Amino acid sequence: MRFPDSFPDELARLMRLRRDTRRFRTDPVPDTVLERCLDCLDTAPSVGLSQPWRLVSVASPGARQSMRDIFRDANATALSGYDGEQARLYAGLKLSGMDRAPVQWAVFCDEATEQGSGLGAQSMPEMRRYSVVCAVMQMWLAARAQGLGMGWVSILDPLRVREALALPGDWRLVAYLCLGWPETEETAPELERLGWEHRRPRPALVLR
Amino acid sequence: MRFPDSFPDELARLMRLRRDTRRFRTDPVPDTVLERCLDCLDTAPSVGLSQPWRLVSVASPGARQSMRDIFRDANATALSGYDGEQARLYAGLKLSGMDRAPVQWAVFCDEATEQGSGLGAQSMPEMRRYSVVCAVMQMWLAARAQGLGMGWVSILDPLRVREALALPGDWRLVAYLCLGWPETEETAPELERLGWEHRRPRPALVLR
Repeated sequence: MRFPDSFPDELARLMRLRRDTRRFRTDPVPDTVLERCLDCLDTAPSVGLSQPWRLVSVASPGARQSMRDIFRDANATALSGYDGEQARLYAGLKLSGMDRAPVQWAVFCDEATEQGSGLGAQSMPEMRRYSVVCAVMQMWLAARAQGLGMGWVSILDPLRVREALALPGDWRLVAYLCLGWPETEETAPELERLGWEHRRPRPALVLR
Repeated sequence: MRFPDSFPDELARLMRLRRDTRRFRTDPVPDTVLERCLDCLDTAPSVGLSQPWRLVSVASPGARQSMRDIFRDANATALSGYDGEQARLYAGLKLSGMDRAPVQWAVFCDEATEQGSGLGAQSMPEMRRYSVVCAVMQMWLAARAQGLGMGWVSILDPLRVREALALPGDWRLVAYLCLGWPETEETAPELERLGWEHRRPRPALVLR
């Protein structure tokens, strides 16, 4: 567990500059780059060593259109919840790279896996889904370390996604991911640059 | 976004050797090391830029005893779900470092935060909790890059934890974390070394 002296700084910089990418170039991503992403996903911590992540490559034009339809409907519903200036601002945001991202993966949690025999997931069954989130986060960092961009789309009805992709009923959508080379590198989140929200200073630890 | 050529390899190695630490030395952890962990936690992606993570330092002997009691009860319940050889094996596992870890943090999600104005969390409200998991994962890697160990305890009743720590009703426990210097460095997960479960090869992507 020895790393170069500069490694903790570089890691912190990677995290600080990570970004959620929504504007992609369309050039293909080499398999070697994606393989490294998947290798890092697969070394994530998982409750009881259950490795409950299941990855679906959404590749055909028909499947991609279905996903965009599901996004469009969820986004319209979300927009209808805002008024006035906030609605105008929301309508102008680009909240998904599903139009252009060359690689699109839906990541599910297998809620029924027997791997791990339930260890650690009895009082907190959500730990399986949290393990999948850990895996996604590891992959995100591995992607960015190679210059690849990733965006996590959550404006989706998870049940419709599962049904449209004809996946088992015990699989639960955790993340819909767009991957590809980013059009530009940005140092601040787009939601901040466009005035939707700003990052707040880290609050003090609550002491007990 | 340029990193040293060796950086992606070092990052992959960090992830591969991360481990869930349950056996800690009791020497104190310098504030500078913990500050770097918290800085990395705070640059995690969050839905709508909502930064919904809330950290509670469980520090007093009384608060720590309460947490150990809650673990003991949840662990007894979990054990009662296993039979025979599996029960014997489970009973012999050390599943928490709460007895000795010098730093213990409970990490909550503020389900009622107005930061982000609900963007991205309407069709998948679980995205707030997933954002907290992303933050925990970033902190875990930042800790390990500095040689610090971390263990995530999930054998707890989340409601009892929140009540014992007298926290707001909208806060939901996502993770109870033990931090400190590890007694030993291990290359394989303890659950694998002790025969509870073994890591499986990464399955092929499902194609749609």
